[in-house]
Amino acid sequence: MYSQSMYQLGSKRSVIRETFEYGRKRKAEIGADKVFDFSLGNPSVRPPEIVNKLLKEIIDEMEPTALHGYTSAPGDPATRQAVCDSLNRRFKAGLTPDFIYMTCGAAASLSCCISALCCKGDEFIALAPYFAEYKVFTEAAGGKFRVAMPDPDTFQIDIKNLRKEICKKTKAVILNSPNNPAGVVYSEKTIKKVCKLLKDRSEKYGHPIYLIADEPYREIVFDKTKVPFLINYYDNTLVCYSYSKSLSLPGERIGYVAVSPKAEDAKGLYAAVMGAGRALGYVCAPSLFQKLVARLPEVTSDISVYKKNRDILLGGLESFGYICVPPQGAFYLFVKALEPDAYAFCEKAKKYELLLVPGDDFGCPGYVRIAYCVSTAQIENSLPAFKKLIEEYKNDRS
Amino acid sequence: MYSQSMYQLGSKRSVIRETFEYGRKRKAEIGADKVFDFSLGNPSVRPPEIVNKLLKEIIDEMEPTALHGYTSAPGDPATRQAVCDSLNRRFKAGLTPDFIYMTCGAAASLSCCISALCCKGDEFIALAPYFAEYKVFTEAAGGKFRVAMPDPDTFQIDIKNLRKEICKKTKAVILNSPNNPAGVVYSEKTIKKVCKLLKDRSEKYGHPIYLIADEPYREIVFDKTKVPFLINYYDNTLVCYSYSKSLSLPGERIGYVAVSPKAEDAKGLYAAVMGAGRALGYVCAPSLFQKLVARLPEVTSDISVYKKNRDILLGGLESFGYICVPPQGAFYLFVKALEPDAYAFCEKAKKYELLLVPGDDFGCPGYVRIAYCVSTAQIENSLPAFKKLIEEYKNDRS
Repeated sequence: MYSQSMYQLGSKRSVIRETFEYGRKRKAEIGADKVFDFSLGNPSVRPPEIVNKLLKEIIDEMEPTALHGYTSAPGDPATRQAVCDSLNRRFKAGLTPDFIYMTCGAAASLSCCISALCCKGDEFIALAPYFAEYKVFTEAAGGKFRVAMPDPDTFQIDIKNLRKEICKKTKAVILNSPNNPAGVVYSEKTIKKVCKLLKDRSEKYGHPIYLIADEPYREIVFDKTKVPFLINYYDNTLVCYSYSKSLSLPGERIGYVAVSPKAEDAKGLYAAVMGAGRALGYVCAPSLFQKLVARLPEVTSDISVYKKNRDILLGGLESFGYICVPPQGAFYLFVKALEPDAYAFCEKAKKYELLLVPGDDFGCPGYVRIAYCVSTAQIENSLPAFKKLIEEYKNDRS
Repeated sequence: MYSQSMYQLGSKRSVIRETFEYGRKRKAEIGADKVFDFSLGNPSVRPPEIVNKLLKEIIDEMEPTALHGYTSAPGDPATRQAVCDSLNRRFKAGLTPDFIYMTCGAAASLSCCISALCCKGDEFIALAPYFAEYKVFTEAAGGKFRVAMPDPDTFQIDIKNLRKEICKKTKAVILNSPNNPAGVVYSEKTIKKVCKLLKDRSEKYGHPIYLIADEPYREIVFDKTKVPFLINYYDNTLVCYSYSKSLSLPGERIGYVAVSPKAEDAKGLYAAVMGAGRALGYVCAPSLFQKLVARLPEVTSDISVYKKNRDILLGGLESFGYICVPPQGAFYLFVKALEPDAYAFCEKAKKYELLLVPGDDFGCPGYVRIAYCVSTAQIENSLPAFKKLIEEYKNDRS
């Protein structure tokens, strides 16, 4: 009959989705303001006002068949030029539009890159904690998925662990910074070490080990943290980007892949990414939103809300005694569960209407993810619940 | 290095694309009105005016994070309900929203269905002439692609040929009506024969052979031709639909899969389709356009333009002596090349600035496709060129 592996993927709800659905039901029972749902990475900050204004302007100005018609498969030329100009202006990336491939968001970008790279027997290494879909995309492309565990204190990359995972079969390392779920930004020092290791091993094995940079949170950083632009550090890099988080447009599915022009046989690599897009059923990225992002490549939603949320949440939780990974970016806080089993901890948190997600799905058991892309009021109102939760654990121990 | 099969897919331009690019260059040289480009299936008829009006209304009315946020993976509940209601109203399809999966257009629908069904060793049969990407999607999913040739006079399905291709390994038959590139609509009589054959063979082999109905041209039919709704004729059916052609929105990537509720283990089959979407990197169909189609499930562009184009083109070409397949739907005319090699014929047509596409890529050598989704003026102005072309062949022969 049908494919059992696809059935499993479609029928097994992720813990995130399950928690979210539980939250919906619970809100209907006791009122939305009484449930502290931190399960989903759905931006709460509105898209910048200019988004809707520009959408309407574009609709009014453009000839309708040109506006809504197919763009070329890699994307509208003006959009690719705008993306390229922005990356060059910000990072001196040395890109040309020929290395920009517009996609239906970061998931599509990742899926196309992994399919473009994967040959029989290849392995892909994710740096934990990692976005669970990396495993899905890798296995769908026929690759083997491996995980390198992080430094358990900082959640930065542990080079020693990464070194152990790399072998002759390694095709690529997937790196996500600012990180979902830990909120850390990998430092330039760490990045340099990773790149050195990959370069050495590429030479040793006689084939490139690629770096796939998953960067939907690039613009969501606090305290002037710098996010190194990996094309400038490592030649065989593919950058996967999405406007979902920066412009609060996750439902509209618009992003891109930028292939480093310095990659080995960069043009061939780019063609393989395009070919993978074709094979997976992607025709072009949504046309209206291609036109939109061409006009505002460097605008973002109001990031200061996420910083404010982080400060209140981190300050509150640490003052109660929680052990947190201080986030420098994205909108997630990774917190040590108060018992070894994060699932059990999340169940207990539900008693206080706190909906958290166990770190197990991100490759880091014993931790939970708090998605703080919610209203600041929800953060403030949830603090007493977090306090009661830790007190229950303290009382149990005494 | 990267995958050679993906590289091939990304670097080998399709003949359609190449012809289109040639046309662009040629138009720059001698003027757009002098080049008769019939290469692309890009609708020339504007989207109905209500499309842009509704888009602006939705943008003004909806809360922005709800409008542009993630919808649930299978699609916005209101959209799925509207699609389902429309199908039930028109075809008494007995569907519920639980069997509607919103997608990024027909290519995504097909790719998800084929991936959902494909197990190791499976074969998929396309009915020639067929859309070339069926082969790409099938092979990307790990399946083997087979072709059943049509009745050479009518381009209807030749049951004898289909019977020969079916074997124990057959997982599905892909059926496209109204047909690209032949413009034929498979008659109810033909459909019933196909369904009977598939039912018999499913029983014989002890596993379902699925019917994948690729239906982006469903609404584009002339002379009151009826397009049988396959869910009503065969239980193990998956319908792949797109609004690209009916609403002239091909760049916006919006469509759906409808799984027959009467399919064997229909819920499991639907879950497999969803799982395939997830594995291929689809997250949700573009949110704004989901909201749009929910509000106009039965509106179409002005189809009468395509009928007018067909009548002028078919009348003209037949009067000159061309042998044409009379199209009952879609916006393609399939014409017998004036020499056995359709590529050579297309090259000769270029002398008269006529840009046609050889039938070889659609599995039918010796024919060419004329996409008449162009301005009526282009059709009228091109007729003298078609006349000169056939006269050249007549003169060569005498």
